[in-house]
Amino acid sequence: METKVLALCGSLRAKSSNKGLLRYAQANAPAGMSIEIADLSQVPFYNSDLTEQPAAVTTLLAQFAAADAFIFAGPEYNYSISPALKNAIDWASRAPNNALLGGKAAAIMGAGGGMGTSRAQYHLRQVFVFADIHPLNKPEVFANAFAGQFDADGNLIDEKIQNNVKAQLEALAAWSQQLRK
Amino acid sequence: METKVLALCGSLRAKSSNKGLLRYAQANAPAGMSIEIADLSQVPFYNSDLTEQPAAVTTLLAQFAAADAFIFAGPEYNYSISPALKNAIDWASRAPNNALLGGKAAAIMGAGGGMGTSRAQYHLRQVFVFADIHPLNKPEVFANAFAGQFDADGNLIDEKIQNNVKAQLEALAAWSQQLRK
Amino acid sequence: METKVLALCGSLRAKSSNKGLLRYAQANAPAGMSIEIADLSQVPFYNSDLTEQPAAVTTLLAQFAAADAFIFAGPEYNYSISPALKNAIDWASRAPNNALLGGKAAAIMGAGGGMGTSRAQYHLRQVFVFADIHPLNKPEVFANAFAGQFDADGNLIDEKIQNNVKAQLEALAAWSQQLRK
Amino acid sequence: METKVLALCGSLRAKSSNKGLLRYAQANAPAGMSIEIADLSQVPFYNSDLTEQPAAVTTLLAQFAAADAFIFAGPEYNYSISPALKNAIDWASRAPNNALLGGKAAAIMGAGGGMGTSRAQYHLRQVFVFADIHPLNKPEVFANAFAGQFDADGNLIDEKIQNNVKAQLEALAAWSQQLRK
Repeated sequence: METKVLALCGSLRAKSSNKGLLRYAQANAPAGMSIEIADLSQVPFYNSDLTEQPAAVTTLLAQFAAADAFIFAGPEYNYSISPALKNAIDWASRAPNNALLGGKAAAIMGAGGGMGTSRAQYHLRQVFVFADIHPLNKPEVFANAFAGQFDADGNLIDEKIQNNVKAQLEALAAWSQQLRK
Repeated sequence: METKVLALCGSLRAKSSNKGLLRYAQANAPAGMSIEIADLSQVPFYNSDLTEQPAAVTTLLAQFAAADAFIFAGPEYNYSISPALKNAIDWASRAPNNALLGGKAAAIMGAGGGMGTSRAQYHLRQVFVFADIHPLNKPEVFANAFAGQFDADGNLIDEKIQNNVKAQLEALAAWSQQLRK
Repeated sequence: METKVLALCGSLRAKSSNKGLLRYAQANAPAGMSIEIADLSQVPFYNSDLTEQPAAVTTLLAQFAAADAFIFAGPEYNYSISPALKNAIDWASRAPNNALLGGKAAAIMGAGGGMGTSRAQYHLRQVFVFADIHPLNKPEVFANAFAGQFDADGNLIDEKIQNNVKAQLEALAAWSQQLRK
Repeated sequence: METKVLALCGSLRAKSSNKGLLRYAQANAPAGMSIEIADLSQVPFYNSDLTEQPAAVTTLLAQFAAADAFIFAGPEYNYSISPALKNAIDWASRAPNNALLGGKAAAIMGAGGGMGTSRAQYHLRQVFVFADIHPLNKPEVFANAFAGQFDADGNLIDEKIQNNVKAQLEALAAWSQQLRK
């Protein structure tokens, strides 16, 4: 059974190390897994007053609908989730019967300071309770954006974190299969 | 000593009950306290690639700088903070030496479902640790947006919550004074 | 496939409403599920200096080992988990290869004040990440210990919460089966 | 104005590195600050059925009452607070009018794995909201118990962490003074 994964990055910066994590994951997906990376740059803040759905939101929601599983990567801002990442989930959670998120598997990774975005990741796990997403418990991926693990363009070059990401993708494939049985 | 308060609302909706909480607070500020309500509708997502500061951000940061204390009000989206509110703090936290936020007092209020946005409020408190904001511990304000406490325009009409808000404003004035000694 | 459930209560009080939740669950387990309630009254604080395992701990760990799934019920003390409940998990997590907890399903319920122990429950979910326990996302069970939902002996008498507990047990049975495939 | 500090350690182990943090703090308290270290080894789990207050609890509560400020140090068990530490706060929080805790200053330090007990520390901060304790925001103290920062007896020997602890004590003295004005 193939696993279609939608990957979302909480940083909008072009050379973001979190985008680098996702590019590495995409290029190293295990057999049977395909990873699509969402573009959040044009997704506006959720606002229920909006009468027309912005085009970028329509595209994003279709990607959520088509995915079997998710990868959420992002920086930690002020010890919590980056707004761009949270906002994507908030849009997706508005679908009738929670059809875009409910019961799906997810993995979390992040590149940040010394704690590797861990504080943001535990907040994200609480978001998943309401969104009814089932996150992997292990392995967790905590990368350091300022310790030579990434090059100047945000590419992941640290072998230990590369292996960590690959192990997480394997675990995500198995977890997603288990939840879809 | 006067207390200048900047109030921020995490909902962008015109008839938001959280905006109603802030309007009530503004109209019922204790003697010596003035409350200004920020406009977050034009504040874009934080992105360090931006080379020019958007005008709405410049205005917002000047308001943060001028304030002695803050009120944060907002809905709870997926058991956490609304992105628009978090994003305002993220912008403000980028000032050199944390000059806009560090050491200032804050109060939190929110109108949401049955838990009154409490889950979002505890996430916000963790944000304050890094931002070096000192929140009031008590009284907490947990309003219910769906139980007749607000009218159709989002105005706060429930006397118990009104008194709760007024008690919180009194506590904020005292707390802010104490921190500025 | 039968589901053997170990239920743990974070209150040591004889007439605890949280014990009442567990008694109700035990008496209303769905077909194929058996629920055993642990006795935490003689389990000491975890201390790695102890050279002999206390008898109550030996019994508890055997119960953890035999269980397919868990129910954790408990009061909220100071916005977090009761120490007696956390301590039981801490003891169990010391087994080699996390053999007592890893990969098993869990449900959380609680009787407390107006928020129904929700603040403690989200802390417990973070504990599960390290312990590699997979909690149900839904339904959540938030009971009020002070609003007539329990009689003076701590028995659950509120029909809505009774149905909530029964729905959670059904969900736990299905979730546990899915994780064991 | 003198600052009387009560320090509590969440590990019961004799050679605990967290006890080492507190011994270092005690021996290096700034002028005007005295630090007493509580003995939690005989404090039982809180249980409202108990009809007589255990002697160790009576002693502990008197220490809480006499203190102007607190230091909480402890390991991280399963990504949260150690039960022995949480239990001490739970006992203290039962005093009428929250007289033992309310409005007092606190500092948090911890020695653990790679994250330095940070996950437990943020849970502790949520406990303080209900207990009405005012924690320092900065500096945070995150020590590593497994990286040569402590000797075999649990004594703190790492100069960087020593300076970190001393800076935190200075900040605690100032914060406690500010809260008592």
